[in-house]
Amino acid sequence: MRNIKLLIEYDGTDYVGWQRQLNGKSIQGEIERVLCEVLQEKVDVIGAGRTDSGVHARGQVANFHTSSHLGTEEIHRALNGLLPEDIVVHHAEEVPLDFHARYSARERTYSYRINTVPTALMRRCSWWVKYSLNVDLMDQAGAAVVGMHDFKSFCKAEADVNNHICTVVLSKWSRDGATLRYEITANRFLHGMVRSLVGTMVDVGRGYTTMQEFLQILEAKDRREAGMAASARGLVLESILF
Amino acid sequence: MRNIKLLIEYDGTDYVGWQRQLNGKSIQGEIERVLCEVLQEKVDVIGAGRTDSGVHARGQVANFHTSSHLGTEEIHRALNGLLPEDIVVHHAEEVPLDFHARYSARERTYSYRINTVPTALMRRCSWWVKYSLNVDLMDQAGAAVVGMHDFKSFCKAEADVNNHICTVVLSKWSRDGATLRYEITANRFLHGMVRSLVGTMVDVGRGYTTMQEFLQILEAKDRREAGMAASARGLVLESILF
Repeated sequence: MRNIKLLIEYDGTDYVGWQRQLNGKSIQGEIERVLCEVLQEKVDVIGAGRTDSGVHARGQVANFHTSSHLGTEEIHRALNGLLPEDIVVHHAEEVPLDFHARYSARERTYSYRINTVPTALMRRCSWWVKYSLNVDLMDQAGAAVVGMHDFKSFCKAEADVNNHICTVVLSKWSRDGATLRYEITANRFLHGMVRSLVGTMVDVGRGYTTMQEFLQILEAKDRREAGMAASARGLVLESILF
Repeated sequence: MRNIKLLIEYDGTDYVGWQRQLNGKSIQGEIERVLCEVLQEKVDVIGAGRTDSGVHARGQVANFHTSSHLGTEEIHRALNGLLPEDIVVHHAEEVPLDFHARYSARERTYSYRINTVPTALMRRCSWWVKYSLNVDLMDQAGAAVVGMHDFKSFCKAEADVNNHICTVVLSKWSRDGATLRYEITANRFLHGMVRSLVGTMVDVGRGYTTMQEFLQILEAKDRREAGMAASARGLVLESILF
C-alpha cells in the first residue's frame, strides 16, 4: 500500500463543495472518479479542508491510499489530463502511510476577496459589497480574533464538534483600490467560520456594528449574534501547513 | 439628441466577441438589447475596440446617441441591473455629439497573460503554455516592435484595411513566478495582431524562433511568416486613450 499526497487548485463555482454529495458534482467526487479510472481501483480521497459549495482553493491538500505501482508523475499527469479544467493538480508525491491530509494539518490559511465596485472578470472569486467600507476598522476587528478564542458565534448551527476553540495566528485586512483582501490562518476552522467572520467584519467596516459590539459578539458564543455570512465566491483555501 | 459614453468591463468567455453576429451572443448585442429596454428606443452602440470571441475587457469604451432624457446615473444603474453579471458598466457620462468611441480613440492598451503551469482559478483569462519561457528574450522581441512598423505579418488575412502601419508606444513583458504578462499600447491594432504577436514571441521565448528570425518576420510583411496566434482567453482590452 502507498499513500499519495496531492496539492490541488480549483474554481469551486460549479461544484457542491469539496465533499461528495448526492445533489451534484463535488471536487472530491471528480478526483475519485478520475483516480478510479487511472488506478483501476476505488480510492477514498481525504481533503485537508472541506470547502463549501462555491468556495475555491489554491492550495487544497488531499491524500489517498492505493495498491497501484503507477509513478506519482504519471498519476499527476493523468489527473490533469482527465479532470475538468476547473480542477488542477499542482503536485503529487508519495508520503508516509500515516500522513492524513485532515488530521496531520497543523494550520490552514484562507483568503477572502471583496470588491466595492462590481467586477465582471473577478466575479467568480470576489464578493461585491455595495457599502463603502472602512478597512482600518475591519483590520481592528480582524486583529481582535487573533489568539485562542471560542468561535461558537461564528459557527454554523449544524456543526458537529466537541468544542469551538480555535487558535488564530494571523487575521489581517488590506486594501488595494476597490479590492479588499482578508487573510486568516488558524489551527482549525469551524463550519462557515470565515464567511461568518467576514460578514460580521463587513458590518463593522460599513459602520453598522461598532468594535465594542463586535467584541461582544465574539464573547457571546451565540451563533444568533453574528452578522450575515459573506458570499462563498470570495473565499479561497490558500494553503495547509503540516 | 445626446451622446452617452460608457466605460465597460467584461468577461468575453461566453460571447462571440464585441460585435453583433448572427451566430451567438455578443457584448454589443447584450448592451443594445438592455439599452432598448431602458430607453424605449433602438440604439447603435459603437465600441472603441472590436474584441474577438473569448477576449476580455477591463476598459472598453463605447458610445451611443439617444433622444431619451434619462439621467446618465439612471442609465448606468439600469444597465448594471439588467446586464448579465459578466458585463459591468463602470461609468456613464454625456459627451459632445461628435465623440466617437472608435474614431476619437488615440491609443489602445491591451494586456496578455500566460501561465506556465495550469491554473484553475485564472483559466478564463490566461493562456497555459507548456514550454519553459525565457521572458528576457520575449521582452527583447517586445521592444523590437516599439515605433512605427508595418504589421502585415501579424494581421489576419481577412482584415479589410488600407494599410498595416501601426505606431506602438509601449510593448513590455514581465514575469511574476509562473505568470507572464505582456502589455502593448498603440495608436491602432489590426485584426488578430496582439494574439499573433504574442504567439510569435512565445516561439522566441521557448527558443523555437531566434530574435533575428523574429525581426525577419516583422520585415516580411507576410502573414504566413508569423507564429500561431495565442489563445483568446489571455487577452484583455485594458484602456482607451482619447
